Amino acid sequence: MNTIYFDNAATTYPKPDIVYETMDEVARKYGVNAGRGGYFLANKAGILIDETRELLAELVNTFDYKSVIFTPSATIALNSVLFGLDLVKGDNIFYSPFEHNSVLRPLEKLKEKLNINLYEIPFNMETFEYNLDKLEKMYKQHKPSLTVVSHASNVCGLIAPVKGITEISHKYGGKVLIDGAQTLGLLPVDLKEINCDYYVFAGHKNLYGPIGVGGVIVNNENLLEPLIVGGTGSNSEELVMPYEYPGRLEAGSPNIVAIAGLNAGIKWLSKQENILEKERELLKTFLRVIGEYPEINVIGTKDTQRILPVVSCLFEGYTPQDIARLLDQSFNIAVRAGLHCAPKAHKILGTSLNGTIRISLGYFNSEKEILNFGNILDDIYY
Amino acid sequence: MNTIYFDNAATTYPKPDIVYETMDEVARKYGVNAGRGGYFLANKAGILIDETRELLAELVNTFDYKSVIFTPSATIALNSVLFGLDLVKGDNIFYSPFEHNSVLRPLEKLKEKLNINLYEIPFNMETFEYNLDKLEKMYKQHKPSLTVVSHASNVCGLIAPVKGITEISHKYGGKVLIDGAQTLGLLPVDLKEINCDYYVFAGHKNLYGPIGVGGVIVNNENLLEPLIVGGTGSNSEELVMPYEYPGRLEAGSPNIVAIAGLNAGIKWLSKQENILEKERELLKTFLRVIGEYPEINVIGTKDTQRILPVVSCLFEGYTPQDIARLLDQSFNIAVRAGLHCAPKAHKILGTSLNGTIRISLGYFNSEKEILNFGNILDDIYY
Repeated sequence: MNTIYFDNAATTYPKPDIVYETMDEVARKYGVNAGRGGYFLANKAGILIDETRELLAELVNTFDYKSVIFTPSATIALNSVLFGLDLVKGDNIFYSPFEHNSVLRPLEKLKEKLNINLYEIPFNMETFEYNLDKLEKMYKQHKPSLTVVSHASNVCGLIAPVKGITEISHKYGGKVLIDGAQTLGLLPVDLKEINCDYYVFAGHKNLYGPIGVGGVIVNNENLLEPLIVGGTGSNSEELVMPYEYPGRLEAGSPNIVAIAGLNAGIKWLSKQENILEKERELLKTFLRVIGEYPEINVIGTKDTQRILPVVSCLFEGYTPQDIARLLDQSFNIAVRAGLHCAPKAHKILGTSLNGTIRISLGYFNSEKEILNFGNILDDIYY
Repeated sequence: MNTIYFDNAATTYPKPDIVYETMDEVARKYGVNAGRGGYFLANKAGILIDETRELLAELVNTFDYKSVIFTPSATIALNSVLFGLDLVKGDNIFYSPFEHNSVLRPLEKLKEKLNINLYEIPFNMETFEYNLDKLEKMYKQHKPSLTVVSHASNVCGLIAPVKGITEISHKYGGKVLIDGAQTLGLLPVDLKEINCDYYVFAGHKNLYGPIGVGGVIVNNENLLEPLIVGGTGSNSEELVMPYEYPGRLEAGSPNIVAIAGLNAGIKWLSKQENILEKERELLKTFLRVIGEYPEINVIGTKDTQRILPVVSCLFEGYTPQDIARLLDQSFNIAVRAGLHCAPKAHKILGTSLNGTIRISLGYFNSEKEILNFGNILDDIYY
């Protein structure tokens, strides 16, 4: 029995065939240490890496491919920005209630070390919307140094008004870091329009690349202090990192195979028409199917224009962990139970005790799988 | 014309077929977010990761597979140790003259930030040996907090007396970090015998895994402060990292495909007989071949028992960059020219101006390739 994979918010799976094929081909044909050699294979690897920067720069409509910085993960990209900014004691940092631990834990560390002040962006549970008026009032009182917002929640899929938040924040002189781990590749992202300072991406989610590459696109002139320092294959006589991006933040051997997979994923994406619309259709079907069971309670909004295909629910009579185990062991369905590394989201959603069951759809899910899921719900509840 | 690849100290290439095959299979069959789900595929991925920890623990004869911590690179592992130790102003840190920028640059940053004191381990250029008597005298004067030593130089292949250095350092209460990026997989490493506190490895060099995974094996009871913090798929309600290794230092989605490749590489290695001896035979042939050209000057010792198959040389009449370009463009030979990210090594070797040409051999080099290289030298010099 094939697995029905509903954990695409953790990582999209499977990847397009061309991604696997490209990774294997590049590993075999020029899986060397890119840009460290100067010989044919190393140059070819280096060119592929820069081409991938260009693909990303184009995707987000930014000015310079050199501002696309690769890190081994979105987590490391977020750490690199948060610890690379010159934050000092007393700085006011705002964050959304939907932040992942890859933001919350660095912020907590900064608070302990530097005594920064942390403020949660106000959220209206009734309308299930960010409250930007209240946010502006808070900015007036506490001049912001930085605001961090997940472009979309990995718990309930809610898309944040990143352009509006950036606009207000900039009015008060604060920088904005968007965590686009869940969004880039699925939602259109135009950095000229959003105008945030840092946009972090994960290669292995909606960009359909492999785990092993993420990064940050820098959209201002400010130079981050490198968090990780080491060999760069350039300026080797210097005991500090190169001055310019991307080398400044890219210590260690670049992961040519993962970047090649990401390159193939982005090219594949560019050939798909209306991937967002397709996934939203799946989402509508999914919400309709589970809507027939009064025992299933969706947490958050069901407005498919305001969310990604990431749905948190509770199943009456079961803990999230129980239902996940049942779905896995009896029906080979992969979903995720718990807090999904975003504990504060559950505080405002009222699901802190056991978290939620999360079903997250991807391009390779089918309507048939979702209808099958409905049949299984019949088995469970009738 | 096939490339003759002599840049194995940067990354071994090619990898054994089974490494490519395993990576592709794992990516396709269970390239999911390991240990984050709890469903079948995620569990299978998690088991593979822990099995790889066990393979490494066995390889270095350490007590606990949980002390094997994976990072995306050796660079990040070194940063994690150096910034994770609780170093304070006035601490005395010793380092070998052969350290890579992945050690030198973090040390420089610590010096700037914390005002630690840095001391180079004394080296006798005449005997081409570490001077441990002098080192002990320095330790007596400046109580060591930490000593960092590359197990083998990535410039001239010299193997460091890591057991002796650790013994003396421990006598004076200092911790020892060994950078085994060049060595693990090729030299036998027994942590019970060496007894260092931290042993860093690179997956993509002599372990024949891919770029994208390295790590540190912790060999003491001390808990490092996490440098990178974020989601761990565990203890998600906590705003700090899990207390215990390995989770404590492993934020972000584990790179299951790279770890699977490393797993296959280590298993492949365990089936090879006398890989060190085979490579030393190649090295002897290589040194014999270039020994016929008085125009080629080997930097460092030619004692094949004291070095890895990593040779730095200078070619009369050419800068290292010129000869590397010629070898690449006219003969399709991949070697590396410059400082090899180890500027202090060139200071004591007297090759700071342009660095050296480095030829580094691996398991997949053949005697025939080396004899071919000899013919090419004829072309160049006669």
